[in-house]
Amino acid sequence: MPRVVVVLVEPKNEGNVGAIARAMRNFSVDSLVLVNPCPIGDEAYQRAMHGRSVLESAKVVTSLAEAIEGADLVAGTTGIATQSEKKFRRIALAPREFAERVRALDGTLALLLGREDFGLRDEDLERCDLLVSVPAEPRYPVLNVSHAAAIILYELFSVHPARSLRKASGIEKEVMFRAFGTLLEASRHPAHKRGRTQIMFRRLIGRAVPSKWEFHALTGVLTRAVKAIQLSQEPRALSQELGRKAK
Amino acid sequence: MPRVVVVLVEPKNEGNVGAIARAMRNFSVDSLVLVNPCPIGDEAYQRAMHGRSVLESAKVVTSLAEAIEGADLVAGTTGIATQSEKKFRRIALAPREFAERVRALDGTLALLLGREDFGLRDEDLERCDLLVSVPAEPRYPVLNVSHAAAIILYELFSVHPARSLRKASGIEKEVMFRAFGTLLEASRHPAHKRGRTQIMFRRLIGRAVPSKWEFHALTGVLTRAVKAIQLSQEPRALSQELGRKAK
Repeated sequence: MPRVVVVLVEPKNEGNVGAIARAMRNFSVDSLVLVNPCPIGDEAYQRAMHGRSVLESAKVVTSLAEAIEGADLVAGTTGIATQSEKKFRRIALAPREFAERVRALDGTLALLLGREDFGLRDEDLERCDLLVSVPAEPRYPVLNVSHAAAIILYELFSVHPARSLRKASGIEKEVMFRAFGTLLEASRHPAHKRGRTQIMFRRLIGRAVPSKWEFHALTGVLTRAVKAIQLSQEPRALSQELGRKAK
Repeated sequence: MPRVVVVLVEPKNEGNVGAIARAMRNFSVDSLVLVNPCPIGDEAYQRAMHGRSVLESAKVVTSLAEAIEGADLVAGTTGIATQSEKKFRRIALAPREFAERVRALDGTLALLLGREDFGLRDEDLERCDLLVSVPAEPRYPVLNVSHAAAIILYELFSVHPARSLRKASGIEKEVMFRAFGTLLEASRHPAHKRGRTQIMFRRLIGRAVPSKWEFHALTGVLTRAVKAIQLSQEPRALSQELGRKAK
């Protein structure tokens, strides 16, 4: 993964700067560069919460050139992705595609976010190697700048292999499905409906992708249910048996 | 896709409520329900921007039960996804997985977002059919509530089939690759290097997935370059020819 530097070009609202600092901390990005920013005061720090350190170490510069010095890839964000193929200056990637493309980059990625009102200017966009745009409702596609930042940083963060809960093995699943089948039998579920009921259950579990622990827990529930049925039926079975013998 | 209703449980910061209203407009969601909210005033409307209509039509209720009445699926958000499989109450889906699962739902989805400080309480979580959690830096996983909302709404919005630029056909690509080959030849690129250079180009283009228009534009560039080389070489070729004939 590249090292990400967030570059805010002439932000006008310190609250947004603070909110972006917080989102950066949430998604493990530390380097913030501010190009001719508004004054950064209390509101920014309040909104930053645990992103205070990001704000404190932010670098303030007076030109975009200075901000992107040393960057290996410069990505610009735009709220207005073009509908026209010919306006290639504004052809943008969606955040997910963007994250997938840059994940292999071993270097510094500068992510440029523009002014709250006008975004990045054409001359800023010309410095960008690629553009990112968050797909949104065409009638109001312009996101709050901290929301755009959060979404793009979230996608960059999410391309890491996710830590996942242990999934149940095939054998564990079969043990559970058998327990389910036994339960149907034990509970005298109509024989001609058992097959499709079992399939329904298998599908349902398939969609849920439960963890190893959940499988064990659920199998336990089924097994216990089966045992409980068998126990309650024993006296009856016994009396039936006795009844038959008495005939 | 389900109809989405955003439910904010006891929000304490009107700015966040406004920011969420804006994000809702960005991602085509209109219905907002507020459970025992803080007063909603100027700051909320300023942050809402074009989401003003969402705020104006927000429904205010005094209990979660009232807020989720009629919902076909209730999804809760949690900042703290459990690491433990046994705390199943907090096992959550990542936003993308969540969006993929609910896309087929034909009904109303209530998306619950909790208090800024403590999130959703255990009794709120028990009302949820499933949980969503935005994967984030373990040392500081708690997002601003409007950022969490924006990311989840973005994922719900993005599962729609995306409108995409027209892609170039295989034939168009071959025309371009031939043009590139011709250019290598015309420009006297060392013969033993041509093969791999062409492969490099093909791979590069493959990764870039350009639009139809970009292909035509690039093919035009290559063709023009080839023609320009041939024209400049013609006088020389002619003189060489004449030279040979003169021998």
